[in-house]
Amino acid sequence: MARTVHVAITGAAGQIGYSLLPRLASGAVFGPDTRVSLNLLEITPALSALDGVVMELDDCAFPLLDDIVATDKPDVAFDGVNWALLVGAKPRSKGMERGDLIRENGPIFVGQGKALAKAADDVRVLVVGNPANTNCLIAMTHAARAGVPGERFAAMMRLDQNRAMAQLASKAGVEVGAVTNMAIWGNHSATQYPDAENARINQKPCADVIGHVSWLQKEFIQVVQQRGAAVIEARGQSSAASAANAAIDHVISMETATTGDDWFSAGVLSDGSYGIDAGLIFSFPLRSDGKGGRSIVEGLELSDFAKVKIDATTSELKEEKAVVADLL
Amino acid sequence: MARTVHVAITGAAGQIGYSLLPRLASGAVFGPDTRVSLNLLEITPALSALDGVVMELDDCAFPLLDDIVATDKPDVAFDGVNWALLVGAKPRSKGMERGDLIRENGPIFVGQGKALAKAADDVRVLVVGNPANTNCLIAMTHAARAGVPGERFAAMMRLDQNRAMAQLASKAGVEVGAVTNMAIWGNHSATQYPDAENARINQKPCADVIGHVSWLQKEFIQVVQQRGAAVIEARGQSSAASAANAAIDHVISMETATTGDDWFSAGVLSDGSYGIDAGLIFSFPLRSDGKGGRSIVEGLELSDFAKVKIDATTSELKEEKAVVADLL
Repeated sequence: MARTVHVAITGAAGQIGYSLLPRLASGAVFGPDTRVSLNLLEITPALSALDGVVMELDDCAFPLLDDIVATDKPDVAFDGVNWALLVGAKPRSKGMERGDLIRENGPIFVGQGKALAKAADDVRVLVVGNPANTNCLIAMTHAARAGVPGERFAAMMRLDQNRAMAQLASKAGVEVGAVTNMAIWGNHSATQYPDAENARINQKPCADVIGHVSWLQKEFIQVVQQRGAAVIEARGQSSAASAANAAIDHVISMETATTGDDWFSAGVLSDGSYGIDAGLIFSFPLRSDGKGGRSIVEGLELSDFAKVKIDATTSELKEEKAVVADLL
Repeated sequence: MARTVHVAITGAAGQIGYSLLPRLASGAVFGPDTRVSLNLLEITPALSALDGVVMELDDCAFPLLDDIVATDKPDVAFDGVNWALLVGAKPRSKGMERGDLIRENGPIFVGQGKALAKAADDVRVLVVGNPANTNCLIAMTHAARAGVPGERFAAMMRLDQNRAMAQLASKAGVEVGAVTNMAIWGNHSATQYPDAENARINQKPCADVIGHVSWLQKEFIQVVQQRGAAVIEARGQSSAASAANAAIDHVISMETATTGDDWFSAGVLSDGSYGIDAGLIFSFPLRSDGKGGRSIVEGLELSDFAKVKIDATTSELKEEKAVVADLL
């Protein structure tokens, strides 16, 4: 066995956690030669449910699964971890505005950001809990003060990327694997901009293959932006398996060097690329070197249509940042 | 791509189905060179929820996932499938006796058994829905009349096997991968006999390693038999992820030749081995040839203690068979 990877998962007894854990523990993420150690964090009232999840993980008899730690203490959960998947967040309750949700969740990510000082030197963090970008900004800010570089943080946009790829593949009548170079810009919210202009299908410009620009500019974007609500409407519960799958795809994309001239999308600290305000957690197209490093893909063309969309999602992120200014 | 495997899953919108589908579609079961086509069966009132599950599968952008068919018609669901995973069954409601549950579920498996005539020539069937052995017996009986050989059917005991392996590993302080040759005998119920006498730890007899015969004969067996109830108590919901994982392990065990002198457990048609009444669906230790065939491991020693346990679980299976005699 080459190594053991230590992974923290917050909200581990929730629905996304429940979908995520067996896939992590089975070796599907880090490969057949890597043992996996899991540190599971939950709020105190959910510790009994978490015990049940741990029992089930034991009952899977995963040969690669090493220790499991179940705790309600972030300091314990993040101790020595190579990956921290911040899945847990308070869900939006009926009648709650997005601003209220941000204020409810902010303090959780202050504490978790500070506790990430306990993580391994090479820790990478993925924030899944919503509002993911702003939660990520808060956690990153406090972790940075404790010495964790901001480049280690990402907010999950992979579910949006995967949803966009599936819609394009379906429209073009091709397998989803034929869709590449899918950039999602901005916030993981209804203002996100899924970028069909730079996407490719079998290496050809997506618009050339689909040839239906008004669909790409309207229905396509709306379907991707509203997909979460559509799943809730059909299934009666929010996306869990597909969110967990997206988290897995993100981790795999970071663990392996990006091939060809493809890219993947995640919300990362803006360095001012494409004119986006530095300091926002903004989704860009990214490439990974497979060794923990990632870079923003520069030089993509953005049409006037795209710029308007990107301005809107940037504005939303700036408003969210203002709402939590006292937590930063 | 070498091939596409067609898999039917019943009860596909249920909790076990929800855990099972992403792992099947991701390639974790049939490998990276096999495309997977999914035929999902649900009862009519669950078709909307099933639509939501299909949306989430699309949103996973699995490169290996081929077509998805969602239907409430067994004839459609089983058409041309290589594997049929019969997960759906009515759960036991409050105050319902086991006999009532058997009577409630029996007719479902009459219809599904008949519809399995539509499956591919090489179909293999795994019954997960409880009472699994007797449901399997019913489905097998009706499928056999339509020409599907009885040897293709199995009732899932792999969750019990995995639970037993995890308990032995924990007691011995070894990794679960060190536990082999775990036989579960009889019914997937509280009368099952998890056989520590023939189990090995690092190739040594389990009793020699653990050295605590009274624990092996009492607490060990009770913990395995009662594990499902303990998970419900802790988690507030029945085992889903670990049940799905066990189904996956079963399929993988059938798809690959059993290595060394190991075995795995499943409920299969008794041919009279070990004196078990021919015609019962009884869990035995099995070996797979990796080509669809499997054989019962013969010649294992059974102590007087084991024989008493095996008699008890045999009696229960005969009683269950009598309860559904008119459905056979």
